[in-house]
Amino acid sequence: MSRYVFGVDIGGTTVKLGLFNVEGELLEKWEIPTRTQENGSLILPDIARSIEEKISEKQIAREDVAGVGAGAPGPIDSEGVVHKAVNLGWDVFSIRKTLEELVNLPVMAGNDANVAALGEMWKGGGQGSKDLVMVTLGTGVGGGIITNGRVLTGAGGAGGEIGHIHVNDSEEESCNCGNKGCLEQYASATGITRLATRKLAESSSESLLRQGEVSAKTVFDAVKRGDALAMEVAEEFGKYLGDGLSVIAGVVNPDTIVLGGGVSKAGEVLIDYVKPHYQKNVFHGSRDARFVLATLGNDAGIYGAARLVLDVAG
Amino acid sequence: MSRYVFGVDIGGTTVKLGLFNVEGELLEKWEIPTRTQENGSLILPDIARSIEEKISEKQIAREDVAGVGAGAPGPIDSEGVVHKAVNLGWDVFSIRKTLEELVNLPVMAGNDANVAALGEMWKGGGQGSKDLVMVTLGTGVGGGIITNGRVLTGAGGAGGEIGHIHVNDSEEESCNCGNKGCLEQYASATGITRLATRKLAESSSESLLRQGEVSAKTVFDAVKRGDALAMEVAEEFGKYLGDGLSVIAGVVNPDTIVLGGGVSKAGEVLIDYVKPHYQKNVFHGSRDARFVLATLGNDAGIYGAARLVLDVAG
Repeated sequence: MSRYVFGVDIGGTTVKLGLFNVEGELLEKWEIPTRTQENGSLILPDIARSIEEKISEKQIAREDVAGVGAGAPGPIDSEGVVHKAVNLGWDVFSIRKTLEELVNLPVMAGNDANVAALGEMWKGGGQGSKDLVMVTLGTGVGGGIITNGRVLTGAGGAGGEIGHIHVNDSEEESCNCGNKGCLEQYASATGITRLATRKLAESSSESLLRQGEVSAKTVFDAVKRGDALAMEVAEEFGKYLGDGLSVIAGVVNPDTIVLGGGVSKAGEVLIDYVKPHYQKNVFHGSRDARFVLATLGNDAGIYGAARLVLDVAG
Repeated sequence: MSRYVFGVDIGGTTVKLGLFNVEGELLEKWEIPTRTQENGSLILPDIARSIEEKISEKQIAREDVAGVGAGAPGPIDSEGVVHKAVNLGWDVFSIRKTLEELVNLPVMAGNDANVAALGEMWKGGGQGSKDLVMVTLGTGVGGGIITNGRVLTGAGGAGGEIGHIHVNDSEEESCNCGNKGCLEQYASATGITRLATRKLAESSSESLLRQGEVSAKTVFDAVKRGDALAMEVAEEFGKYLGDGLSVIAGVVNPDTIVLGGGVSKAGEVLIDYVKPHYQKNVFHGSRDARFVLATLGNDAGIYGAARLVLDVAG
């Protein structure tokens, strides 16, 4: 009978690690730097060493450990094979097999955004749901989809890459992915800033946004103070994200939509701008999906990674 | 060890039934009328009786039957509970439990379009894929999504209802679902006819379509004969469907897209109009998905229904 599980969230600068009991209680968390040199070949050995140290330190019996779950930024298929993770210097290889050999414990691996969605389902804002869409509004827009309690991985590990669904035919600027009119261009922190900057240039009306730095945070702060121009920006953001989510819901029929990432710190006001657009266009079978804010913050990844292991072990 | 399985496809006017061996060979198929009177309460007893008769006729031992799979037009959740099927007169009840009691065999149930997708994956155009999107272009647009070999059911059984994703903000006519700008309004047989009729009224250029009835069939027949106006209609159809599929693929990352339904009888030309739009806007992780035509026709439903049972039994 397993008592512990490790959850690992591999980011471009730091690796977050968590030791959980199998009920999902986070017993301890810590970080190590992500050493991306040498094509990222040091990353998994560093993780394995850190886990070994924790096992020794805590005097945990190996047979009490269910395994190690890992999330990483890149497409990772259902076998745990990563198909290039640019930020880490990784090409194509099996994270699962490589880390299993290093740590001598069962390993599961998945895309970081998908894994975060699983974490929010398990212990965060999405608790009680088995069919959930999580959208992470940060520098970019990430996504993770859970259907019937499991991560939707997709054929090549690119399931839930909803930041790059096409939402606007008339966009002239290119997205980082090379396409034009991706959801990320409007709903990310960067996208909101872009919408606000555009609106400020087009209009001559007064706005709190003219007084300092323009960012997703200052836009929503201004919205809360009743700033008309900021509200127009929020409306535009809400339309793109709400319409986009309505399409996603038409595909996967979730009962819960979790908004996370830095932008979601704006709070419930975000939902106020997104939900009306969602409800206007969504198929009636998904109209009553509840909108919630993510609650695990940067820990969603380690929670979800741990859960990946328990889904298989359990 | 099971040797046989029944697949049942419940339509508004007829119920199709198939007897398969567990390798998926269709041994015999037949139909019975769908008696929708009395709130559809006769339908499942009729099916049970027909299966009993077939078991007797073929002198099949009950223990050799893995079970009965059933597809029906309406949202059916992962427990086999239908949430209203208007065409059959059904409200909310468990198809699975009800039919299990009647037929005394294990039963699985799913939405007809989802089940057809499973059929095409198993024995049709999608063979070899585990991550597949099937779009059925008939009077309406239906859809079924398979991820990691299993039907994507969704929270309320409305997974894969892709006919009603929102693809056009400027549409003024309403879709049957009540919304405006649904994919079905452009990509169904009815939708193609509507696009053609509109185009004929707006333009004064010559066209084969001015010579007789306008339908999806006559549009694509005219396309094959190089009719310029028909080609404009096909282009518009291709844009809406290709863009829509690109979004769906951004969500579920399929390796295969199956086009089925009456409109797909137009053949490969359909793919020629859809695929360029798909590839233009889709996230790169799904750009190489193959496009294929459905091959099972009206039998997809009974194949998929049989497979539903084997997925659980196997």
